[in-house]
Amino acid sequence: MSDGTFPFAIRQRVRFAETDMQGVVYYANYLVYAEVGRSAFLRYLGIERDALHKSGLDFAIGEASVRYHAPLRYDEEFDVRVRVGEVRGVSWALHYAVDRADGLRCADMTTMQVVYDPARAKAVRIPDDVRTALAGGAP
Amino acid sequence: MSDGTFPFAIRQRVRFAETDMQGVVYYANYLVYAEVGRSAFLRYLGIERDALHKSGLDFAIGEASVRYHAPLRYDEEFDVRVRVGEVRGVSWALHYAVDRADGLRCADMTTMQVVYDPARAKAVRIPDDVRTALAGGAP
Amino acid sequence: MSDGTFPFAIRQRVRFAETDMQGVVYYANYLVYAEVGRSAFLRYLGIERDALHKSGLDFAIGEASVRYHAPLRYDEEFDVRVRVGEVRGVSWALHYAVDRADGLRCADMTTMQVVYDPARAKAVRIPDDVRTALAGGAP
Amino acid sequence: MSDGTFPFAIRQRVRFAETDMQGVVYYANYLVYAEVGRSAFLRYLGIERDALHKSGLDFAIGEASVRYHAPLRYDEEFDVRVRVGEVRGVSWALHYAVDRADGLRCADMTTMQVVYDPARAKAVRIPDDVRTALAGGAP
Repeated sequence: MSDGTFPFAIRQRVRFAETDMQGVVYYANYLVYAEVGRSAFLRYLGIERDALHKSGLDFAIGEASVRYHAPLRYDEEFDVRVRVGEVRGVSWALHYAVDRADGLRCADMTTMQVVYDPARAKAVRIPDDVRTALAGGAP
Repeated sequence: MSDGTFPFAIRQRVRFAETDMQGVVYYANYLVYAEVGRSAFLRYLGIERDALHKSGLDFAIGEASVRYHAPLRYDEEFDVRVRVGEVRGVSWALHYAVDRADGLRCADMTTMQVVYDPARAKAVRIPDDVRTALAGGAP
Repeated sequence: MSDGTFPFAIRQRVRFAETDMQGVVYYANYLVYAEVGRSAFLRYLGIERDALHKSGLDFAIGEASVRYHAPLRYDEEFDVRVRVGEVRGVSWALHYAVDRADGLRCADMTTMQVVYDPARAKAVRIPDDVRTALAGGAP
Repeated sequence: MSDGTFPFAIRQRVRFAETDMQGVVYYANYLVYAEVGRSAFLRYLGIERDALHKSGLDFAIGEASVRYHAPLRYDEEFDVRVRVGEVRGVSWALHYAVDRADGLRCADMTTMQVVYDPARAKAVRIPDDVRTALAGGAP
């Protein structure tokens, strides 16, 4: 999967807090990096969490997976790349790559977002405006 | 300050996630340990956050300080000891010690809790039942 | 998958630090819970990280995945259940369930551990004593 | 204390991971923000951790304190401002302010750094080049 397939990236720098005693970024923190990429990407696509809330909706993560390729270390800069994957009825996928600033692929990730109505604790169909916005984030 | 001055302790074990690249517990995580001790201690004293919420109140941390004496390492067991400090009009202090299972003092901490009314974003006097319960947690 | 298929469990309580603004446990923290279960399970099986280190070996996580079924909230108790999955040449799988204390299944997880030689940055065959110990952790 | 007294600032944005069930940034995460400011500030002053390591030295945090003034919320941008405080024989102080992008002061912090020799587990005098560099970071 070439970098060209990701329409969006955000640069970050590894914090001391994110390392562990093996001297590299702790494995769970890659899902935090995914969240940073996801938040910035959805803002870029015009999908505001606040707007969803005003419609009485929210989304939650239904599935997440990470494949680790190479470690990141303290103070290294890296890019979180994001693209929209499959869009279904109540859920959509996001795919991520974490690349060290020199291009080394450190991790691949996928998350599945589920739109739901907190008041009814029930998954609901992705609103049309969100669906349209997501179409702009596919490679 | 002898251990005897702490009326309460809870044992924990260092998680891999809590270490950093220096091979010891990351400095900010001691405030997480304080929170674990505080939550358990308040439950022990009968001060339930839910009960406060039903009265339309909550509390927040206004100040926190840590003095680090010795490092904790992965998989080590330790005790978070807690006692009530000064109780004032709208706030009260808690003092903590983090002791490795063999008794080595690793850190001392203090936090200041402030009772407030979220609806008015205003500090309010500590309710009498909380005040009475806190009196039971002084050494 | 019935609870009976997990030969090991460790009970934990949700920390305030582990919640997010949706009022539930933040999604990345389930991988921290997996680590707590994994550490305790490997200790139970007699697979000590220190012993691996003395052989000049270590292990890292190559893949991790989570399926979220129901949220966990502050102060709730839960069990992290663990069992050994497929054991291959240089890697082995662990499967986890996170169950609220009343039995509600909150999440399923899988991690793939890879044994490697840090000096050569190269995956190596799982040592025989580790292989034998892992055989004791399958359901 | 006016903003003018801080010779350095780094802008960050609140991550979802950093919030808690009260809807604001969890109190221990301010020490992570301090670390982000400290790392960037020391790099700016030319004090490289790698250079210290090559001299067989490292530094650790001996004390940390936080005063909380106003909450930060998800997605808000803020500045971590840093300045050098008192420089003593083996330790030096850093002072921090966390200001929301519109200027609201959210927290004040102080940390005390102690230079030590990991091989001897003993505090040592701040090297002259570090002392000179720190002089450039006072307001």
